Amino acid sequence: MEIRKIRMGMVGGGKNAFIGAVHRMAAGIDGQIELCCGALSSDPVKARESGELLSLPTDRIYPNFREMILRESQLPSHERMHFVSIVTPNVAHFEPAMLALEHGFHVLLEKPMTFTLNEAELLEQKVNETGLLLCVTYTYSAYPMIKQARQLVREGKLGNIRKIMVEYPQGWLSTLIETESPLAAWRTDPERGGLSSCMGDIGTHAAHLAEYISGLKITRVCADLRTFVAGRRLEDDGNVLLGFENNATGVLSASQVAAGEENALKIRIYGEKAGLEWNQQDPNTLLLKWLNEPAQIFRAGQQYLSPLAQHNTRLPAGHPEGYIEAFANIYRNFSAAVRAKINGTSPSEAMLDFPTVADGTRGMKFIETVIASGQSSQKWTAF
Amino acid sequence: MEIRKIRMGMVGGGKNAFIGAVHRMAAGIDGQIELCCGALSSDPVKARESGELLSLPTDRIYPNFREMILRESQLPSHERMHFVSIVTPNVAHFEPAMLALEHGFHVLLEKPMTFTLNEAELLEQKVNETGLLLCVTYTYSAYPMIKQARQLVREGKLGNIRKIMVEYPQGWLSTLIETESPLAAWRTDPERGGLSSCMGDIGTHAAHLAEYISGLKITRVCADLRTFVAGRRLEDDGNVLLGFENNATGVLSASQVAAGEENALKIRIYGEKAGLEWNQQDPNTLLLKWLNEPAQIFRAGQQYLSPLAQHNTRLPAGHPEGYIEAFANIYRNFSAAVRAKINGTSPSEAMLDFPTVADGTRGMKFIETVIASGQSSQKWTAF
Amino acid sequence: MEIRKIRMGMVGGGKNAFIGAVHRMAAGIDGQIELCCGALSSDPVKARESGELLSLPTDRIYPNFREMILRESQLPSHERMHFVSIVTPNVAHFEPAMLALEHGFHVLLEKPMTFTLNEAELLEQKVNETGLLLCVTYTYSAYPMIKQARQLVREGKLGNIRKIMVEYPQGWLSTLIETESPLAAWRTDPERGGLSSCMGDIGTHAAHLAEYISGLKITRVCADLRTFVAGRRLEDDGNVLLGFENNATGVLSASQVAAGEENALKIRIYGEKAGLEWNQQDPNTLLLKWLNEPAQIFRAGQQYLSPLAQHNTRLPAGHPEGYIEAFANIYRNFSAAVRAKINGTSPSEAMLDFPTVADGTRGMKFIETVIASGQSSQKWTAF
Amino acid sequence: MEIRKIRMGMVGGGKNAFIGAVHRMAAGIDGQIELCCGALSSDPVKARESGELLSLPTDRIYPNFREMILRESQLPSHERMHFVSIVTPNVAHFEPAMLALEHGFHVLLEKPMTFTLNEAELLEQKVNETGLLLCVTYTYSAYPMIKQARQLVREGKLGNIRKIMVEYPQGWLSTLIETESPLAAWRTDPERGGLSSCMGDIGTHAAHLAEYISGLKITRVCADLRTFVAGRRLEDDGNVLLGFENNATGVLSASQVAAGEENALKIRIYGEKAGLEWNQQDPNTLLLKWLNEPAQIFRAGQQYLSPLAQHNTRLPAGHPEGYIEAFANIYRNFSAAVRAKINGTSPSEAMLDFPTVADGTRGMKFIETVIASGQSSQKWTAF
Repeated sequence: MEIRKIRMGMVGGGKNAFIGAVHRMAAGIDGQIELCCGALSSDPVKARESGELLSLPTDRIYPNFREMILRESQLPSHERMHFVSIVTPNVAHFEPAMLALEHGFHVLLEKPMTFTLNEAELLEQKVNETGLLLCVTYTYSAYPMIKQARQLVREGKLGNIRKIMVEYPQGWLSTLIETESPLAAWRTDPERGGLSSCMGDIGTHAAHLAEYISGLKITRVCADLRTFVAGRRLEDDGNVLLGFENNATGVLSASQVAAGEENALKIRIYGEKAGLEWNQQDPNTLLLKWLNEPAQIFRAGQQYLSPLAQHNTRLPAGHPEGYIEAFANIYRNFSAAVRAKINGTSPSEAMLDFPTVADGTRGMKFIETVIASGQSSQKWTAF
Repeated sequence: MEIRKIRMGMVGGGKNAFIGAVHRMAAGIDGQIELCCGALSSDPVKARESGELLSLPTDRIYPNFREMILRESQLPSHERMHFVSIVTPNVAHFEPAMLALEHGFHVLLEKPMTFTLNEAELLEQKVNETGLLLCVTYTYSAYPMIKQARQLVREGKLGNIRKIMVEYPQGWLSTLIETESPLAAWRTDPERGGLSSCMGDIGTHAAHLAEYISGLKITRVCADLRTFVAGRRLEDDGNVLLGFENNATGVLSASQVAAGEENALKIRIYGEKAGLEWNQQDPNTLLLKWLNEPAQIFRAGQQYLSPLAQHNTRLPAGHPEGYIEAFANIYRNFSAAVRAKINGTSPSEAMLDFPTVADGTRGMKFIETVIASGQSSQKWTAF
Repeated sequence: MEIRKIRMGMVGGGKNAFIGAVHRMAAGIDGQIELCCGALSSDPVKARESGELLSLPTDRIYPNFREMILRESQLPSHERMHFVSIVTPNVAHFEPAMLALEHGFHVLLEKPMTFTLNEAELLEQKVNETGLLLCVTYTYSAYPMIKQARQLVREGKLGNIRKIMVEYPQGWLSTLIETESPLAAWRTDPERGGLSSCMGDIGTHAAHLAEYISGLKITRVCADLRTFVAGRRLEDDGNVLLGFENNATGVLSASQVAAGEENALKIRIYGEKAGLEWNQQDPNTLLLKWLNEPAQIFRAGQQYLSPLAQHNTRLPAGHPEGYIEAFANIYRNFSAAVRAKINGTSPSEAMLDFPTVADGTRGMKFIETVIASGQSSQKWTAF
Repeated sequence: MEIRKIRMGMVGGGKNAFIGAVHRMAAGIDGQIELCCGALSSDPVKARESGELLSLPTDRIYPNFREMILRESQLPSHERMHFVSIVTPNVAHFEPAMLALEHGFHVLLEKPMTFTLNEAELLEQKVNETGLLLCVTYTYSAYPMIKQARQLVREGKLGNIRKIMVEYPQGWLSTLIETESPLAAWRTDPERGGLSSCMGDIGTHAAHLAEYISGLKITRVCADLRTFVAGRRLEDDGNVLLGFENNATGVLSASQVAAGEENALKIRIYGEKAGLEWNQQDPNTLLLKWLNEPAQIFRAGQQYLSPLAQHNTRLPAGHPEGYIEAFANIYRNFSAAVRAKINGTSPSEAMLDFPTVADGTRGMKFIETVIASGQSSQKWTAF
């Protein structure tokens, strides 16, 4: 019989976790995924309480990811989870992901994919060996207007691309809040967050978005990184000159200390014939600016959009969809691909439109390269 | 034992229905409601297919609402639905709602609440008799910045209110699409939509929003209603002068033929000391314009917002929430109130912050009054 | 010999006057008009001081408009003024204008053109008799994007017009500032401002703009007028339902007590095929919203604009022009028409694109009609 | 006797010149400056025709700047020009400026001030020797909201500044239009424009604005410069990492090939406590974004602005002033300082608020430094 609902297990995301709750909302909105089990905290007591709050069956609230993966793999196929969603701090991504793959489970991972580039490469190798699906939640590229932007580039509306400006200013780390905020604490802690705070947490989103829309790879970087807040252990601001394939140029600027900014990811791409502009805080609008014609305002939900852009919305134009819906697009596409695999059919192109292990590895390489450039007195560091 | 997940049955909302799908997304996003049964179409075949698509248990896919309500009422309490969500065309609201109340079920209804004002009054009487909860989905008043706007008015930030400008332009009915679009067809059909198309479908949202934020009741109206599209059976445009309690004045303008507009509900409220402005298409921003000071931009997700505004968001500032989340606020608050009732506790003020049967009745009265005014040569019609 | 610089005399506009100074900036910016004489105040001392501040020759600083007009008419033609600009309070428009026409001078007048409709009709008659030029400064219709808007309507881009929404909220009279501000004092004084404050000062701009762009005349009005500020002698707020030729509908809302608003004139026009939107506070942008295509952003200074829109700018796109430049468009066009008359050539269509005595009379009729409607219990008052 | 009107001579700016016409509009708008003579073109025939079009007296239309400066210097003081405005291509700035200073005339110069840094230093030396006034038209720092921004920084509203993002995208050189457009031709010609096109024409504005508002000097740069259009002789795009005094960081990005952009100069400055944002295309708005409070919208013409911001507007809030008015602020302030010098009084601080020879020299140094950095493989080049 054909499977309809996909069963998800979750690692991390216990009480008070921010991103775990977002993942559950994203998985829940479209009614196609069921949370069936979890190892929601590294603290077994908290894991249990969190599972109960989510009405999980008692016997599928696990004290840790190892037990979850082993026990689930022993359940009959009509019961056991289909994939595992891993929403722990960066340092705790690799182990559950690898174990899940080894036990035949598809995997969905928060970005950045791993703690080190080496871990990423190991995961990528394992995915290639097993043929399992691995998805990394580069959420912002899942907005419908990003699909449209990519399509406009592909259709040649911009001509050759010359310049990409991507910026991601946030202000929430303008003071030393890591002493109070658990969210801030692990992100700015080299033992849990990794090499980088600003570039690892948000710069990597910006880089992914630039490459996703433009179809061009970054080939070199020149980074100026700073730690502005006294007592902070990782960088909280960075400006990066970019070189792309095809001789395109660009700037990536990210900050966690841009006081007064919320989550103002913005991208502009200029080609020979036109320019594109998109702001995450007004995500349903995409500007296409022509050289000698009136600029056009593309809007989510309109029927003139490309099929992929339309596929990634739920509502008619003017009914704003937001961050959770973008996140849900990844879950919906990924779970549809998982479903196709299970049912023995070929996933469509739209189902496969989610960030993969290759994107995850590339993101890790971006972080390592940009941190190296920040420490170099050379202008350019190859990527 | 304390109940956590609330069980919902649905009447209407089968395959291809717009608003039914929205209701399910809204109910699903927060993981606190489970769709347990449905009578999803008046066509039994479609009802069955729709139920299967939603993975409902076969024995709880009902061929019609009567059977659903009767059969559910005979199930043991730990199985049977807690409330019914009714998302049929207007003409088919009253019967299932009344039957559900008679069988002890709480009810959630799409707006406008009923087909006639008389039906609304009967429902209101029944709700008052039974003490059951009835919620009407005036979605737009559930946005967090509307909560903030209401709070700013209550705190006296505006002083006495002088003028309320509310507008709701849409363009989707600019041509006679009712010949092709089922959504358009029933809304413009007097036998299914009721007295009014434009005022009943969107004008009533605008009126509710104005009263909700300002805390003032409309006391009189002067309406100019039009049917612009040849062959259309109900009005598709209207401009209404408003009088409010407290001598405030205003305008309500709604249109389904404002070519090029999507769903551009907007409200501005001016008092002696300041003015407020909010746009549904940019819902996370609220402007507070001062007389001789810089205007302020309030933003959803910020910690300086009122507790109720914060309660009705899920994400930090800069992560846009939209229409589905606003809708979900109603489901979350309503289902929390239902849960409190079931568990024998008192619902908090935040739980009870959803539009009630009284709002629904008032909406029906608005429609009847404004249609009467449109036909009158008198300037003012009392409301 | 061909005349190049046009000589202007000014009545009113002495020290501290707001609008007189604006007129001089508007006349000065393009270098085609020379202020040659003035009767700048009804107070002869202030008239002299004001003239000296402006470096007028001593013998052409006149103590009152009568002496100015008589003495100028006796000067040789290569010295005497070519036209008179009248910038006094409304009550003092008619007499100098009529006297100037009687002595063969062209006239430029602030709006509203006169104190009463009867005066307006007398002026119109005199203009028709003499063939002299009379211009009324309905400034807002002189913005380049308004020229473009009118052109788009004429070209049929919108199809038949269905609805016109025009609003003009200001907040500067939110309190009883007429006790301190001379600008506020005469506008709210029936003896100097006329029948109306809000409708006469700003409502008339809104009505002119609606008719200018759409090419449709208002045929009936239904007005709700209010005086919100205690102690004020004229209305400070008004909402008006509009009927237009061709069965179009609309709303005009104007306010001087919309707290926090500056000078937020805005117009939207909806036709069968598209909608237009323009805001005075962002005057170089015009939105054209299509039914099923991306909206377009027309921008001042672009070469894709109509010839008349291009004629009424001075700078390339992206170099914002504002209120003074719009005002200067009227002066430039009017003075070019005056120059053509003097040089015996035919003014071009672009030169004649300024509001005329007929527009001025229509403005007075609008004020009288809307005030009458405000006092009527009938729904509609014919216009 | 006290001088009121200031007499200006102009070098360059003949028929069809863009910036010369802007200078005359800017000088004319406030009625305080009289154009008394000119050497408007290096072509004597065009110089004469241009002078006649401007109604200059025949004997003060000069065939070249040398004759103008010599002949004017021999006129009696109540007739001769007070200052000379030089609006020629960059290569022709130095000679007339130096000659004018040598003959005792104050000087106003288009930016960039000279062709080479060496010329700039010679001019600065001469200004310091003579005590004459020299003004360079860095127009954008003359907008009222820039005065307000500078004031907010000075008052410490932002705390220590951490990051400055300034960008100046234009799209007008996206194709090789220099073969047709004289404006484009000299700007992209090393013999007339100088070392740089993009950085010299617009990058220098961006750098000036950043230093003007922040009060911080750029100390080092890392530039990536490009020539995108085949056949172009100078760079048309550049991205520059910036270091400032006080350890602040930043990015300056400028482009003449950002297809679809008009003149989109924008600056954001982030400090410890708040951030500022200003866009030249919406120049009357300044955003002040607070860390944990609602952002504030400062608007030109409001009485809550600083005295200097108020001094640099002419109209009440909501009546947009634009580029010409900003330009006119420089002319008004500079000519008021000239007047004070002539009348033997001390110029006030507001009069002296215009860009000086020191700003001009700094601009030339910026251009040379950034071009050198663009050619260097070192990361940082000291400024």
